[in-house]
Amino acid sequence: MEHQVTLTALLHGPDQKGLVSKTSSWIFACDGNILHADQHTDHEEGIFFQRIEWTPAPGTDIARHMHAFQVFAQELGMDVEIARSDCKPRVAVFVSKIEHCFHDFMLRWKAGEFPCEIACIISNHETLRHAGEVTYEVPFHCIPVTAENKEQAEAQSLTLLKAEGVELIVMARYMQVLSDDFLRKVKTPVINIHHSFLPAFKGARPYYQAYRRGVKIIGATAHYATPDLDEGPIIQQAVAQVNHRHSVNDLQRKGKDLEKSVLAQAVRWHLENRILAYKGKTVVFD
Amino acid sequence: MEHQVTLTALLHGPDQKGLVSKTSSWIFACDGNILHADQHTDHEEGIFFQRIEWTPAPGTDIARHMHAFQVFAQELGMDVEIARSDCKPRVAVFVSKIEHCFHDFMLRWKAGEFPCEIACIISNHETLRHAGEVTYEVPFHCIPVTAENKEQAEAQSLTLLKAEGVELIVMARYMQVLSDDFLRKVKTPVINIHHSFLPAFKGARPYYQAYRRGVKIIGATAHYATPDLDEGPIIQQAVAQVNHRHSVNDLQRKGKDLEKSVLAQAVRWHLENRILAYKGKTVVFD
Amino acid sequence: MEHQVTLTALLHGPDQKGLVSKTSSWIFACDGNILHADQHTDHEEGIFFQRIEWTPAPGTDIARHMHAFQVFAQELGMDVEIARSDCKPRVAVFVSKIEHCFHDFMLRWKAGEFPCEIACIISNHETLRHAGEVTYEVPFHCIPVTAENKEQAEAQSLTLLKAEGVELIVMARYMQVLSDDFLRKVKTPVINIHHSFLPAFKGARPYYQAYRRGVKIIGATAHYATPDLDEGPIIQQAVAQVNHRHSVNDLQRKGKDLEKSVLAQAVRWHLENRILAYKGKTVVFD
Amino acid sequence: MEHQVTLTALLHGPDQKGLVSKTSSWIFACDGNILHADQHTDHEEGIFFQRIEWTPAPGTDIARHMHAFQVFAQELGMDVEIARSDCKPRVAVFVSKIEHCFHDFMLRWKAGEFPCEIACIISNHETLRHAGEVTYEVPFHCIPVTAENKEQAEAQSLTLLKAEGVELIVMARYMQVLSDDFLRKVKTPVINIHHSFLPAFKGARPYYQAYRRGVKIIGATAHYATPDLDEGPIIQQAVAQVNHRHSVNDLQRKGKDLEKSVLAQAVRWHLENRILAYKGKTVVFD
Repeated sequence: MEHQVTLTALLHGPDQKGLVSKTSSWIFACDGNILHADQHTDHEEGIFFQRIEWTPAPGTDIARHMHAFQVFAQELGMDVEIARSDCKPRVAVFVSKIEHCFHDFMLRWKAGEFPCEIACIISNHETLRHAGEVTYEVPFHCIPVTAENKEQAEAQSLTLLKAEGVELIVMARYMQVLSDDFLRKVKTPVINIHHSFLPAFKGARPYYQAYRRGVKIIGATAHYATPDLDEGPIIQQAVAQVNHRHSVNDLQRKGKDLEKSVLAQAVRWHLENRILAYKGKTVVFD
Repeated sequence: MEHQVTLTALLHGPDQKGLVSKTSSWIFACDGNILHADQHTDHEEGIFFQRIEWTPAPGTDIARHMHAFQVFAQELGMDVEIARSDCKPRVAVFVSKIEHCFHDFMLRWKAGEFPCEIACIISNHETLRHAGEVTYEVPFHCIPVTAENKEQAEAQSLTLLKAEGVELIVMARYMQVLSDDFLRKVKTPVINIHHSFLPAFKGARPYYQAYRRGVKIIGATAHYATPDLDEGPIIQQAVAQVNHRHSVNDLQRKGKDLEKSVLAQAVRWHLENRILAYKGKTVVFD
Repeated sequence: MEHQVTLTALLHGPDQKGLVSKTSSWIFACDGNILHADQHTDHEEGIFFQRIEWTPAPGTDIARHMHAFQVFAQELGMDVEIARSDCKPRVAVFVSKIEHCFHDFMLRWKAGEFPCEIACIISNHETLRHAGEVTYEVPFHCIPVTAENKEQAEAQSLTLLKAEGVELIVMARYMQVLSDDFLRKVKTPVINIHHSFLPAFKGARPYYQAYRRGVKIIGATAHYATPDLDEGPIIQQAVAQVNHRHSVNDLQRKGKDLEKSVLAQAVRWHLENRILAYKGKTVVFD
Repeated sequence: MEHQVTLTALLHGPDQKGLVSKTSSWIFACDGNILHADQHTDHEEGIFFQRIEWTPAPGTDIARHMHAFQVFAQELGMDVEIARSDCKPRVAVFVSKIEHCFHDFMLRWKAGEFPCEIACIISNHETLRHAGEVTYEVPFHCIPVTAENKEQAEAQSLTLLKAEGVELIVMARYMQVLSDDFLRKVKTPVINIHHSFLPAFKGARPYYQAYRRGVKIIGATAHYATPDLDEGPIIQQAVAQVNHRHSVNDLQRKGKDLEKSVLAQAVRWHLENRILAYKGKTVVFD
């Protein structure tokens, strides 16, 4: 029944008086029912952000309604993205050999925690093929990456992502740095999990760095990948206490739990259209 | 300049279509500028909650504007409370001999963390008179309470609270249970800090109870006091890890930090008109 | 090479002067190398607890050495349990239909996080047979339980556990209450995960209870199962913040992450011989 | 009664077999009673660390006993520091104008949380003189610091610290960087509270840096001050969740609670002789 569809719009643009009233009144005038509306103003930058979720009136032509809202929002000077609840985004999972984030992510997906389809798994190793294809029943593509073939390998991934209609890439501990070129061409958001409390311990071997520095808390950070390594907008972070008794291995083990839950949280928020990234930061309407 | 006043309304009532649009449009029609609007619907109970903060247009007659909003909200079937930023509520602090919450609370107040006036300190002991009167320069009233005089003592407090125009009572570890009769008569909200993670360890000596049970986490709970002891709506809770090495004294020491920050958080939220209590629970627009 | 075996002793008994010296000197006199030694005295109860981990001298007859230590400890009036690192305990996993704790536990085991063998999975449902037998390659036994057959079903489990030489039972969200009779007969420790912050919300549907009460923090508790339901010694607890926006489903989802990590932590500590339970509480040498 | 004195030794040196046995046996041979013994081996560096707390036998000549232990430990190749419970260390508090850490620290001290005497307060401003002298009854010295007089000002502080017999400096948000020269000359440990989660956001205005980066968690770090700014051994860290709604002011407010409790924790551990610093890190026997 088409009238049970819910729509979620994410808007942002220059702040001005009356925006809350205008968007809610537009929906009310169409006899829609607002389920949630959340807004935020960055007073320093003068930007207004809104997430608004509503059910259109029964019998509404959804596509036309979405288009009309888009036109309306643009007339207000707002950028807008609208998602409909009956269209599940297609996601690609990038993974190497490390298993914990991958399994955790796939199990949550199987348990219905993520409103998405998993279009494919792309890995630079064969390690997880059986799990991917048999346990989770998702197409698995092995695209090995070396210093020499990186350009071609990324081109191959891009072709595949396009063919599969992928709208989100989730890097579940994919042990390759995506090139600037790839990130510019891919056009879809890329969510990465970094195994430290950014901006501390960027780059390689963060648990080892944390151990050497003798920190008393370790962390994990989910962020959008951008051409600046580990500098993309942070979506979510979590931490755990450690002490002098913990070896690098202990930090890794404790960190795994953080990585799993932080990545899952970030992806769920993204799929529920709760995140607006701007100026290297995120607004998360949770 | 009166036009810089901001107003904050807390509304709740039966859910119905168009409420977000109606309230925001009413303010927009008066040329007001909405700074924050946050809403929540309890779908199980069918209740709509909203907190809306706005600056009226320059030159607005604030009292009349507030009255008009009140009439408007009632026509929508909503209960409403409105606060104006230029009227600081008057608060009474109840305390016994225990010092940590009291000093922490008063120091935060002196540092400008709470938008309120402290009308008076009421204690059943003389212990903190000097700190209250000299260090913090607030009137201090000692009203001793015994099993025999409890009724008269409470009557004396009620008279004092009325005379001082008190609008909120903060129990900063006041070691007396307020009677049902007092709580019914007082008409102002009462915020209490209970030194356990409610509903675990109600009643007396919660740290001792926690120690005996061997829990691995202790907590503190700020809640509105109601005639049911330790059963009032919970505003905020915080916890800390403990282990077998911690004595009851250690739990008390660690708990003090929780009590201080949780009480402060709860009072600040209350003073910023962020809390709606209903059916034994709270909606906190933070 | 037998000389690389490490031994871990857990001792407890009446406190007396010189215990630390005596146990460490005994090992030193045998030319053993102490890797870790941790002790705790419950001054209220007058009980001394110690965990001591050492490598015996090369060429030591391990069984004889363990026996000698046992005799020595008993002469000091201490109860003692000794584990050798080359003997992995056999564990039985009890599970119903709920998947998250089960998969998480099995994946951690496959990844080498638990020093144990999983002897068998026992379930009152067929749901997880395929995962158990095929994905994790562990024998799976379905023993349905009804009000009528409970006694026979438990007898069947006991026979199986004995035949398999099981030394620890892990209840990974097993949705049956084990009878007092079973718990008395089984002789092995049973670790359960309760989906609340005990002692709050004992019994059925704790997330629903938490939702009704309007708490701001939820938790999970791993404990040893004893005949008193949800009253056994607490091993570990963890919590997460919630607010009025969270439905019962949200609490369940957030709680799953707590349950998984708390259960894993408790089992790992148990398998590393870090836990001494006494008087309804635990000493955890972490 | 001198026999109720407890002694606490902190030892560290090259790891070797039998150390636990040797130290505990030495004490047992003197008829001392070990209350706590905790050890740690850094296997990577091959260093053994121990904290051992005991009551000497009644009638023991404490000074001679301490000296004998020192000789004994040195014969084992260990560095050792011994503290006696009846000698309270003398502490100097450095502070500028920021009040929260100062008041919190002094109130905890007055409440008996720190086993020390506060010898003096040194400030580069007059702001807190009244609080220091009148409320807390501690000598207050104002030593203004400018770019020009820094060398003389530090010399003045050093003279004062020496005259007062200060054994620990606590920087309760002292807004001056101590020079390398000062830190080399002072000979006492200096505990500083840095208002970020180190190593993230070193240097000036860490809350502003955190806000600009859009982190989702802020922190505070207590560390020993060394000539490398914000690079000294970390003692304790704590964190709090933040989101896009928090302004820099909100981060500062939330951070204050972290700073207060983390600084207090670090100082208490230091005063209880629980901390050994080595190679830029700390072992904390908590």
